[in-house]
Amino acid sequence: MSHPSQPPSPPGFSALSAAAEPPVIADLMQRALANPHLLSLAAGFTDNALLPGPAIAESVAALSSQEEPPAFLQYGSNAGRPRLRELILRWVGSFPGERLERFDPASVLVTNGSQQALYLAAQTLCDPGDIVLVESPSYFVFLELLRGLGLRAVPLPVDPTGALQPEAIRARLAELSARGLRARVKACYLMGYHANPSARSLSLDEKNTLPALLREAGLVIPVIEDGAYRDLCFEAPHAVPSVLSLTAWEGFPRLYLGTFTKPLATGLKVGYGICDSPEWRARLLTAKGHQDFGTSHFNQAIVEHLLAHGRYQPHLDAIRPAYAAKARRLDSALRAGGLEDAGWRWSFPEGGLLLWLEGPPDLATGPDSAFCARCLEAGVLYVPGSLCFVDREPDHFVRLSFGAIAADRIDEAASRFCGVARSFG
Amino acid sequence: MSHPSQPPSPPGFSALSAAAEPPVIADLMQRALANPHLLSLAAGFTDNALLPGPAIAESVAALSSQEEPPAFLQYGSNAGRPRLRELILRWVGSFPGERLERFDPASVLVTNGSQQALYLAAQTLCDPGDIVLVESPSYFVFLELLRGLGLRAVPLPVDPTGALQPEAIRARLAELSARGLRARVKACYLMGYHANPSARSLSLDEKNTLPALLREAGLVIPVIEDGAYRDLCFEAPHAVPSVLSLTAWEGFPRLYLGTFTKPLATGLKVGYGICDSPEWRARLLTAKGHQDFGTSHFNQAIVEHLLAHGRYQPHLDAIRPAYAAKARRLDSALRAGGLEDAGWRWSFPEGGLLLWLEGPPDLATGPDSAFCARCLEAGVLYVPGSLCFVDREPDHFVRLSFGAIAADRIDEAASRFCGVARSFG
Repeated sequence: MSHPSQPPSPPGFSALSAAAEPPVIADLMQRALANPHLLSLAAGFTDNALLPGPAIAESVAALSSQEEPPAFLQYGSNAGRPRLRELILRWVGSFPGERLERFDPASVLVTNGSQQALYLAAQTLCDPGDIVLVESPSYFVFLELLRGLGLRAVPLPVDPTGALQPEAIRARLAELSARGLRARVKACYLMGYHANPSARSLSLDEKNTLPALLREAGLVIPVIEDGAYRDLCFEAPHAVPSVLSLTAWEGFPRLYLGTFTKPLATGLKVGYGICDSPEWRARLLTAKGHQDFGTSHFNQAIVEHLLAHGRYQPHLDAIRPAYAAKARRLDSALRAGGLEDAGWRWSFPEGGLLLWLEGPPDLATGPDSAFCARCLEAGVLYVPGSLCFVDREPDHFVRLSFGAIAADRIDEAASRFCGVARSFG
Repeated sequence: MSHPSQPPSPPGFSALSAAAEPPVIADLMQRALANPHLLSLAAGFTDNALLPGPAIAESVAALSSQEEPPAFLQYGSNAGRPRLRELILRWVGSFPGERLERFDPASVLVTNGSQQALYLAAQTLCDPGDIVLVESPSYFVFLELLRGLGLRAVPLPVDPTGALQPEAIRARLAELSARGLRARVKACYLMGYHANPSARSLSLDEKNTLPALLREAGLVIPVIEDGAYRDLCFEAPHAVPSVLSLTAWEGFPRLYLGTFTKPLATGLKVGYGICDSPEWRARLLTAKGHQDFGTSHFNQAIVEHLLAHGRYQPHLDAIRPAYAAKARRLDSALRAGGLEDAGWRWSFPEGGLLLWLEGPPDLATGPDSAFCARCLEAGVLYVPGSLCFVDREPDHFVRLSFGAIAADRIDEAASRFCGVARSFG
């Protein structure tokens, strides 16, 4: 036995692992630690004060008293608890315009947050070098995972309001064909509801036009719709149904993702997918079987208990106005801080945890920018918008989250941000 | 909106996903459903009656009353809770012969069971076509995940008692070199404690000799030691320390895996890795960041609470004799059932949840064998030993688990198994 003080030489790594970049955001978080008084408008966390502590403790107590022996603490199946999958279908089916009668619980798989479902989806569909169509901007962790798997993201062009732009999309798809890349386009990834980072929801028109353009380009490819923020609307749910219920997407293999992570408790990590292709779902499950052969059964039992006993909707009824109030407070504080006069523009969202700000076109806001450094000095952290674009361009957007920050710190954080923005104005 | 009754055409799948076999065991389980009176000696589940329901309910209640707001329900970090990682180091360091002073919590990562750590380890080290050295037999889900990643397992030869056989290993490694495959050998996977399926633990001599053989062959490659069953010893812990503490492995990048899944609660899915290579650990974390960016923080908080309040050891003190008694009961029932006279041999283990039986050499026990079919008819399910061998050979072994089955059903299950075995004797 010994205590070598030197670690071993690093092993040889797989080509993908050797090429994988560590998350850019991790480096930013690390730099942020230098300022202990920092206020973060960056973290994708939710508000600790809005987490359902009592409901979950009561649910565990109820499960413990009802199930003896405590089978909810045992392994479950790889696909997830059957009753939970049934309740998930019923939940998603309750949104406006959804018609999920053709699905049964065998169409559903429970995952470690919707993040794992995204990973499984990319992994089952794509070989290194393949292409996934994404919105612009798109979810930056998804862009990172695509790079980690050696895949290429190709953005779907949008207009200045962020809406999908049919003519430009048609041209982009034609260009892929002309370059001989059509056969490499393996999937299309959309966030239909209060997207990360844009906070936009897709309109019915956008959602119906895109599949027509894809079909026209010979791309009847799998579509992944990520509804991670759907339950976090401020008032009424967004009126447009998911791709699962839209005729325009008929014939496209469809995977709709949702989660209880953001809206219920980020610490539980229970997400789900609903898939209309039995072959795809089987392959998602085979890959999941290798990764963990099933999401924590205990956490599934808790979510199932809350859904089955009608406790999820009241929780949402409580937190939706609270997040709406935080969004308004951040929006007002930014306006009061003179951000518009400094050349910034943004829309007020209908839900989610984010504001997506466009700065003056000549302002760089990336991780290495002077603006970013000054914000860190001033004690406020944001997510550089460039991370959410495939080519890290444009570089004058900023994602602000009102999720984690305490409501009474929002004014101060906004004031710091506006102070820096004005000084660059 | 419409309700198409036909699912879409299946998408094109990635090469690996298209080639991946669904788990053999899933098919067996499916066939088993035909007999509702079936007793399963196959499942890797633990005993519901030995799950710590009250301890976990109390832990959740305590966390809820102590933490307001309930930050334990919030996201944590990708690597896991710092205090839990400290307690994990202390726990593993408490086993006989361990010298972990050089490690700090930054060496530890928390995973979704040790299964996820196995997946990340293989993924970060190996490209398709690469080779991982494994014991023979080895953990069949690991063999499946290697195939799922397009990797090849090469078995380390053992003697008739199951012990690593130095001369045969030397010859096998020389053969790999001679075939030009040395550079493709990327890792070595060992189960040092009450292994699945053999129930053997590695001796100090085996554990010290193997690295010398590898070094001699020019293979100073990463070693993954999987200690999933280590905490489930029947009496005293196995006296041999992990590879982390053995001088013979100095210079080899080492990843030791453990879990609270099997010994505490399979429904919680909290496992861990301790890695002495900072570069490897960074890449494991990058890959994990893409897959789920952190194991359920809630479950980590529960395990941390139990460890910190000294409730884990008393739990083990309670369940170890219970599993030992189940093992003895199964062992006795098999002997009473005349299994030895029918030509079967096995050793009584020092821990774990499994008995590993060698049948008569000319008896096939695989999933498609007459023996397997007759056992299903008789109402008893086992894991065919062939699944645990790289080339599905030899085919006359059987893995029996006494983990999940109720103690008072063991005699009946053994009697059914012995009845079939005698009829083939």
